Amino acid sequence: MVEYDAVIVGAGVLGLATAYHLKSRNPESNVLVIDKFGAAGQGSTAKSAAAFRCFFHSRTNFALSDSSVEFYKHIQNDLEFDLKLRWTGYLWLFDEDEYCKMLPVLKDLASKGLQYVEYEESDLVKKLDMRTDLTDDEEAQLMGLRNVRKGILIPKAGLIDVDSLVKFYESEFMKLRGKIQYNTEAMEVIVESRQPLGIPGEPFFWQDATVAGVKTNRGLVKAKKTIIVAGPWIAKLLDSIGVECFIKAKKRQVFSVKAKTEALKKLLFTKEFTDAGCLPFTIPPTPSAYIRPAPEEDALWLAYADDFPRAFKAEDNPEPEENFYKYGLYQVIVKYFPQFTGCQPFSAFAGLYEINTIDHQPLIFEENGIMVVGGASGSGIMKADAIGRIAAALYKDEEYALLYGDRKFKVSDLGLKDRNIEHEKLVI
Amino acid sequence: MVEYDAVIVGAGVLGLATAYHLKSRNPESNVLVIDKFGAAGQGSTAKSAAAFRCFFHSRTNFALSDSSVEFYKHIQNDLEFDLKLRWTGYLWLFDEDEYCKMLPVLKDLASKGLQYVEYEESDLVKKLDMRTDLTDDEEAQLMGLRNVRKGILIPKAGLIDVDSLVKFYESEFMKLRGKIQYNTEAMEVIVESRQPLGIPGEPFFWQDATVAGVKTNRGLVKAKKTIIVAGPWIAKLLDSIGVECFIKAKKRQVFSVKAKTEALKKLLFTKEFTDAGCLPFTIPPTPSAYIRPAPEEDALWLAYADDFPRAFKAEDNPEPEENFYKYGLYQVIVKYFPQFTGCQPFSAFAGLYEINTIDHQPLIFEENGIMVVGGASGSGIMKADAIGRIAAALYKDEEYALLYGDRKFKVSDLGLKDRNIEHEKLVI
Repeated sequence: MVEYDAVIVGAGVLGLATAYHLKSRNPESNVLVIDKFGAAGQGSTAKSAAAFRCFFHSRTNFALSDSSVEFYKHIQNDLEFDLKLRWTGYLWLFDEDEYCKMLPVLKDLASKGLQYVEYEESDLVKKLDMRTDLTDDEEAQLMGLRNVRKGILIPKAGLIDVDSLVKFYESEFMKLRGKIQYNTEAMEVIVESRQPLGIPGEPFFWQDATVAGVKTNRGLVKAKKTIIVAGPWIAKLLDSIGVECFIKAKKRQVFSVKAKTEALKKLLFTKEFTDAGCLPFTIPPTPSAYIRPAPEEDALWLAYADDFPRAFKAEDNPEPEENFYKYGLYQVIVKYFPQFTGCQPFSAFAGLYEINTIDHQPLIFEENGIMVVGGASGSGIMKADAIGRIAAALYKDEEYALLYGDRKFKVSDLGLKDRNIEHEKLVI
Repeated sequence: MVEYDAVIVGAGVLGLATAYHLKSRNPESNVLVIDKFGAAGQGSTAKSAAAFRCFFHSRTNFALSDSSVEFYKHIQNDLEFDLKLRWTGYLWLFDEDEYCKMLPVLKDLASKGLQYVEYEESDLVKKLDMRTDLTDDEEAQLMGLRNVRKGILIPKAGLIDVDSLVKFYESEFMKLRGKIQYNTEAMEVIVESRQPLGIPGEPFFWQDATVAGVKTNRGLVKAKKTIIVAGPWIAKLLDSIGVECFIKAKKRQVFSVKAKTEALKKLLFTKEFTDAGCLPFTIPPTPSAYIRPAPEEDALWLAYADDFPRAFKAEDNPEPEENFYKYGLYQVIVKYFPQFTGCQPFSAFAGLYEINTIDHQPLIFEENGIMVVGGASGSGIMKADAIGRIAAALYKDEEYALLYGDRKFKVSDLGLKDRNIEHEKLVI
């Protein structure tokens, strides 16, 4: 039986970014990726809203996303592998309170060279044909919706084609002679004694034991290092060997509305903000339901990452809920953008966030011979490249990872033991 | 339908200590305790090793256990409610390395007035008829067992009758006209809008929502405050509303060996260490399987809290495993104490630790109208009274709880947001 140097469980964007960087830094290593689906990126990766921003206040968030997005630019511009990057920007619509709270953070970021553009309420009304003042709208008041006072546009942000990104990592990994086995589901993590004695039921608690691979629906896969990058399914695998990862799954839903009317077309294809030829990724005030432009399908996606009382639940086929659109998203968005009046979703999909419930930042650690890479909490796409590089550095036992653009990142900062995360002050 | 001021889910030792202190501080409040079993303390509480110690290095551990045990003394001595406290002490058997590591901690504790007694290897051999030097034992070497160099006896430690403790809190709570409903299982936490609009499917994400009670097998229980003290089952209830509690369950097993032989009787009823008339709670070196004397049943309990790869799993009827005794506990203990040679367990039981995987200290917090009291991680009995008082203080929105003996404890120190725990340096 082959013993791999490393088996990576999960061929989503994080698994493949990890596989590529690990293999490229260890060309002689025998690395296998397995995934339960028949192709790459078919789990939560495929259900992403596929947007990114490089405008964060926390050192951690900024380093991970900015270096990843710079690498994606490099893939597209220098390696000529089209990721369909579209620099639509992010447009935050703040009410008075939110704006006052964010202003010092924004100014601080500006002083560090990060760019943003500020829009007055009247500009927004003109450019977006939107309603900013809901004071006289009884329903909106009952819903607790806030007036829009300012718009903040972040230019270094936009959309990406996730499938292309996944294919890039997959093909590069395979060019390096990495192996991928699809339709292969990890059912269980295998633990063995380091010095087996041949007693039934080993390992016992007085023995030194370590993870030795995974049991799959297609047989045992043995490896010197097992790397779990299975997103919302990580906890299930780790629970079976009593290792805590602090990752829980939550359903996320996206509803796609076709821009059939002139008013919606005008909104979707507005050129008022950037050169991207469409609306920025737009976020009205709290509760911060958002509009994600999907110009290639003549659509606008509406979505919201709900917290309480949305259950933590890892489920195989999460379904979008009609009422979540009908009484939730639609009701909020239509108050600000009357262009949506009467719109039904043309299609919808649901996926799972793999939430790190400690601090919503990625977790990359090793314990008892098993490596865990996950917990990206909804920003896995925009941080995937950095996460892959940090995972590869941990695999090589290095103190620092070198992110794209030669930025150094301390590996243990994303670990459990010496975790050192800067909390984000710029929360949508 | 009655709306209670508070419903407490779980009539284990933590649930009832919470119920008693909450009710005694709010005599007019309408407080209901529910439990799925037919009587108090029938879950993990009943499966405890029922030992305590007041000798910890961390401020947190010491405050919680010392004040609780002082209150138990008060119950027994002043209130004349027999808890069958027995001051057997704890006896740690350290190898050279462990002893050197612990010495500064012990000295620090001694300087703070905490008492301990040190025994030399030769004393231990004489007093316990034990083997301290396993150097020439090939099997013991293969098992990685260490030689015993020193013994440290902690006198302020011992055994307690958990059932009596539970009955104390239950009866005091009922004297105060608290209500308990047994055979009532909380299936689900109920969430409602603070301002219901009568729309089907409320609450929606733009609504302000809060926990309003629990759905049970015997109908809905509505309450202004829902307090979950369900031990290993807390996470299941909270997951359904997407609230993280960082609590996971692990099976723990205890095997009871009858002291049939003269050698075992001598060991069990040794008077060499304390006035308790029996062996201290005795912990040989790493891996730290332990012996818990059970003089009232002429038995010695053997147990070990195994970590990796013991699964995190909340199960209804955890079973003790034959091999855990046969190849695990027995093999370790018999090397140090040949008196156990050939011993089979007379009985065995298994329960669940409710482990707080962040720092193994209790968690007492409120979020979205639900209070959580748990995560005692195996030391719930010895900290129950303090935990109940802190929970009652949180219920009353007080900054500080007053523990028994007038010790102040900052309530938020055991919360999630401003958690402030001193880590324990004296780990068994």
